Amino acid sequence: MNAVPNPLLAEAAELSESVTRPIPGSRKIHVEGSRPDIRVPMREVVLEDTPSTFGVEKNAPFAVYDTSGPYTDPDYRVDLAAGLPALRAAWIAARGDSEPLAEFSSPFTRRHAGAHQLDHVRFPNVPKPRRAKAGRNITQMHYAKQGIITPEMEYIAIRENQNLDRIREQHLLKQHPGESFGASLPKLITPEFVRDEVARGRAIIPNNINHPESEPMIIGRNFLVKINANIGNSALSSSIAEEVEKMVWSIRWGGDTVMDLSTGKHIHETREWIIRNSPVPIGTVPIYQALEKVGGVAEDLTWELYRDTLIEQAEQGVDYFTIHAGVRLPFIHLTAKRVTGIVSRGGSIMAKWCLSHHKESFLYERFEEICEIMKAYDVSFSLGDGLRPGSIADANDAAQFAELDTLGELTQIAWKHDVQTMIEGPGHVPMHLIKENMERQLEKCGEAPFYTLGPLTTDIAPGYDHITSAIGAAMIGWYGTAMLCYVTPKEHLGLPNKQDVRDGIVTYKIAAHAADLAKGHPAAQARDNALSKARFEFRWADQFNLGLDPEKAKEFHDETLPKEAHKTAHFCSMCGPKFCSMKITQDVRDYAKEHGLEADAALNEGMAEKAAEFRKSGADVYRPA
Amino acid sequence: MNAVPNPLLAEAAELSESVTRPIPGSRKIHVEGSRPDIRVPMREVVLEDTPSTFGVEKNAPFAVYDTSGPYTDPDYRVDLAAGLPALRAAWIAARGDSEPLAEFSSPFTRRHAGAHQLDHVRFPNVPKPRRAKAGRNITQMHYAKQGIITPEMEYIAIRENQNLDRIREQHLLKQHPGESFGASLPKLITPEFVRDEVARGRAIIPNNINHPESEPMIIGRNFLVKINANIGNSALSSSIAEEVEKMVWSIRWGGDTVMDLSTGKHIHETREWIIRNSPVPIGTVPIYQALEKVGGVAEDLTWELYRDTLIEQAEQGVDYFTIHAGVRLPFIHLTAKRVTGIVSRGGSIMAKWCLSHHKESFLYERFEEICEIMKAYDVSFSLGDGLRPGSIADANDAAQFAELDTLGELTQIAWKHDVQTMIEGPGHVPMHLIKENMERQLEKCGEAPFYTLGPLTTDIAPGYDHITSAIGAAMIGWYGTAMLCYVTPKEHLGLPNKQDVRDGIVTYKIAAHAADLAKGHPAAQARDNALSKARFEFRWADQFNLGLDPEKAKEFHDETLPKEAHKTAHFCSMCGPKFCSMKITQDVRDYAKEHGLEADAALNEGMAEKAAEFRKSGADVYRPA
Repeated sequence: MNAVPNPLLAEAAELSESVTRPIPGSRKIHVEGSRPDIRVPMREVVLEDTPSTFGVEKNAPFAVYDTSGPYTDPDYRVDLAAGLPALRAAWIAARGDSEPLAEFSSPFTRRHAGAHQLDHVRFPNVPKPRRAKAGRNITQMHYAKQGIITPEMEYIAIRENQNLDRIREQHLLKQHPGESFGASLPKLITPEFVRDEVARGRAIIPNNINHPESEPMIIGRNFLVKINANIGNSALSSSIAEEVEKMVWSIRWGGDTVMDLSTGKHIHETREWIIRNSPVPIGTVPIYQALEKVGGVAEDLTWELYRDTLIEQAEQGVDYFTIHAGVRLPFIHLTAKRVTGIVSRGGSIMAKWCLSHHKESFLYERFEEICEIMKAYDVSFSLGDGLRPGSIADANDAAQFAELDTLGELTQIAWKHDVQTMIEGPGHVPMHLIKENMERQLEKCGEAPFYTLGPLTTDIAPGYDHITSAIGAAMIGWYGTAMLCYVTPKEHLGLPNKQDVRDGIVTYKIAAHAADLAKGHPAAQARDNALSKARFEFRWADQFNLGLDPEKAKEFHDETLPKEAHKTAHFCSMCGPKFCSMKITQDVRDYAKEHGLEADAALNEGMAEKAAEFRKSGADVYRPA
Repeated sequence: MNAVPNPLLAEAAELSESVTRPIPGSRKIHVEGSRPDIRVPMREVVLEDTPSTFGVEKNAPFAVYDTSGPYTDPDYRVDLAAGLPALRAAWIAARGDSEPLAEFSSPFTRRHAGAHQLDHVRFPNVPKPRRAKAGRNITQMHYAKQGIITPEMEYIAIRENQNLDRIREQHLLKQHPGESFGASLPKLITPEFVRDEVARGRAIIPNNINHPESEPMIIGRNFLVKINANIGNSALSSSIAEEVEKMVWSIRWGGDTVMDLSTGKHIHETREWIIRNSPVPIGTVPIYQALEKVGGVAEDLTWELYRDTLIEQAEQGVDYFTIHAGVRLPFIHLTAKRVTGIVSRGGSIMAKWCLSHHKESFLYERFEEICEIMKAYDVSFSLGDGLRPGSIADANDAAQFAELDTLGELTQIAWKHDVQTMIEGPGHVPMHLIKENMERQLEKCGEAPFYTLGPLTTDIAPGYDHITSAIGAAMIGWYGTAMLCYVTPKEHLGLPNKQDVRDGIVTYKIAAHAADLAKGHPAAQARDNALSKARFEFRWADQFNLGLDPEKAKEFHDETLPKEAHKTAHFCSMCGPKFCSMKITQDVRDYAKEHGLEADAALNEGMAEKAAEFRKSGADVYRPA
């Protein structure tokens, strides 16, 4: 596409080894659906046999949900300048209700496409955009309401089950019944269940037809809790190549969606690179780019300019838009006595616009027109919480709830258009006020998926806000939140680097999984069981590899017990050999087995001679590794 | 005391600068009680003025709870070989119910005191031990039941209030009413309230009369949630000097008590150094040392040897003992079908002893004799949960609850002797099963303080178990747990280093504070308010210094905006100048003030000309720093 020397291309063509190297102890597998083009990726952790004095027990490989896309597939050759294969392209085309456009609809896009000074940062092979044919509605919600099960829905059903059948065979399914607070978690997720949840508006499949590279996933309270990672350059730092690498890094650790919050240079071009290379849905906040277009002067924003930005981004393939349409003029004064006012960027931009014009927000007034755009590309709404509390003091106040109630009204309008919709939530909330947020959201927004930022449960730990917020995130996920927006350790302080992104994502995977366990997702506890079994049996490598971050677990173990032999040590490095409780328990069980007794029977029988035998048999606590 | 060259002394005499350097932006203060020898330390954070176009607003210094002892007092000269001043010695002596002993009661102690080969590791000036006079009971619970308010109780009342009166003056007291689940949090903590709570057994003051160096603190559900940090060498690593430094490091970050879990060499001598230099209560698990004394062979443990170990440690000044007296022979078989068996070290040692002798536990059978020892020194019980679950699968099972119910019985026996008692709790528990633990503990153990390890809310994140457990810790703290035992990132993998200890402690301070906010401790939210106000007003240094880890917060900010001028920047480094929502909100408020209107009135009046003025006045988002 461009003949000029392109330093970015050279830089971006290769990802660093750290973001693509194989994840230890596992391999990519694909589970096929009803037809050969439905191939759902999973990451299978290969397990060691259980050592025992009574022969070996085989441990079947354990499949985990995999967000990393082809990057962790050793058979896949990464070429960022080509982008990922368009796995959904044939499904989209086959439906016959959308068509390729001869050129981009947005004048802004066309200007950028023709600007030679942008050649050096432009993605080389920008695909032609598609749009719904006139009068057609091409959203997954529309299909769902018609009773149509799309390939996307079948793909998701397979993905959500995480090989449940296989887990059943391995007796790993022992699970506490959860407390789901009125959710409707099925024992097995079927394509029909996916369809029904999308039709009801209880779940969304963010899948813009212009992002056919994406691997379908679902966001809804009756599915696995998902997490979002934010990336994006700002006026202060970052380059395009860095942002693409951050996206790949984010999905490696488990980001289910990625929001591109860029506010700096080359927003349009950065986004193209990210979308073309992203296997996960991409979300944006279009008002950020709109504000850039008017030189940062909020008062100068117009509906026409914003509308063009929506179309520009929809035709690039953005899967969901955060739109702060609930920040209404009459609500702004409700923030006046707050400790921290308005802390949402989008919210404050709109508040400033509303005040300086003393007019109702154009996002609210033009909401039906926005729906028309969304449904032409199947972009999902993420209705922004521009008035969320930015401090414990401001939690659950009148401003916050006035906006939430408005988002409920807007949800009904979006659903009338069959536009998929989720609702953004706070913020900073002390633990005892979290449940009220969830209950009010479910009630006012008709069970549309809730997508929250934390919430942070205290304000007093800058530098650790991934943790202050993971507490709230786990709780609200349990109560019914469908997706958690991650927070990194740098929140409130600075821009996250790679380590911060990893810390933020793993922390949020913890919160999401803790929520899945508590609400009773049918496949959740199997991984805990498999890992704990490995831990108890001193299968160190398996313990590391079944964890959320195998590399860090191994690195920590190495710090205390660096030798390879220690990876088969029959004691825990924390306590040392003589004090290892797991080892002692195993001795007790081995003793019972050796004597041909079920352990509980052995322990139940009050026979003094058994005790004597046990002592004589020695059962040394330490067995040389 | 010893003339031989002592490399340890040379090494231990100085703490490294990293553990004693002043905490940024704050100074040590002492709040005096009803008499001059009651001087309660606090750390006062000095705040900047609020900048404003309308003159400056003064922000009064903000006092926070301070566990760091004299080490952070620039006027105090650290001399580890001398130990800390015995601030409670006169109080103890004045009561006239205890007496110094001519020599140590434990034969083991006497042997160690005479062994020259230990000279090089021995604390140089071991104080003479004290014990209750014959027939006297010298526990704080005993005094409380007699209606006596001790100086310790008054000290604690001042400490818990955290300068509430001053906070009231500063209008920082705006606070959400909490949800305390039946706790009885007063608006102001009085010495009489402290006494009453101790008398009822709802709180304990772990203050061995042989640890007069300790600064009184309280553990109970109607007070601030406390945290414990574990230190201790193991067979695999660590030296005495390291352990003392770890203790000082732990209290610097906020450890309210420290447990010395040493299992390696020189347990007795290490403990002496730690106690003599510790301003916080020290806990131990005496069975660990007892096991060392029998060469690690659990079967060889005897009551006589254990008893001597209790006396040895009580006369050194250990403030609370973890005693796994609820691990009874008939309960052991209940663990046989568990995924992870018995994971408590103490629990597994006792299980092995019970099984190999096929006898009831001597800890259970000799419990009244143990009480006699405890009350002679005012050592508190921490009744250990030897059968706690070590995995999600094993949570809330029959073994765990059989033991808990037994601990309830034992609590009644301890209280009959006026021995202060707390109860240890799990472990690994999914979120929805946490509350049952707290409710059962309150019911069965008569509201004796609960002291839990986490609980971890999932098993799948080795390397991040400070986080998996902080989620559970915050929740159970909210429900009523009085003290949280920290978990470091190295849990299950290795021995924590200094960084891990800091991460673990700060993480647990977060959990404890989130719990205080949610249950409604009267002084809890003031710090959140003060910090959020600083954040909103771009007082960067104040935001850092009011946080739990000022050094890390500043370091993170420096990574993005390293210049000193940026510490007064009127925008957040995350978003850059144009997108700073806090800045925009301030513009809106400034506008209102400039026009002589209360902000909400200004925003309420629907005047178009005001809007026009606001635009004309420019209110640039970015103000050069």
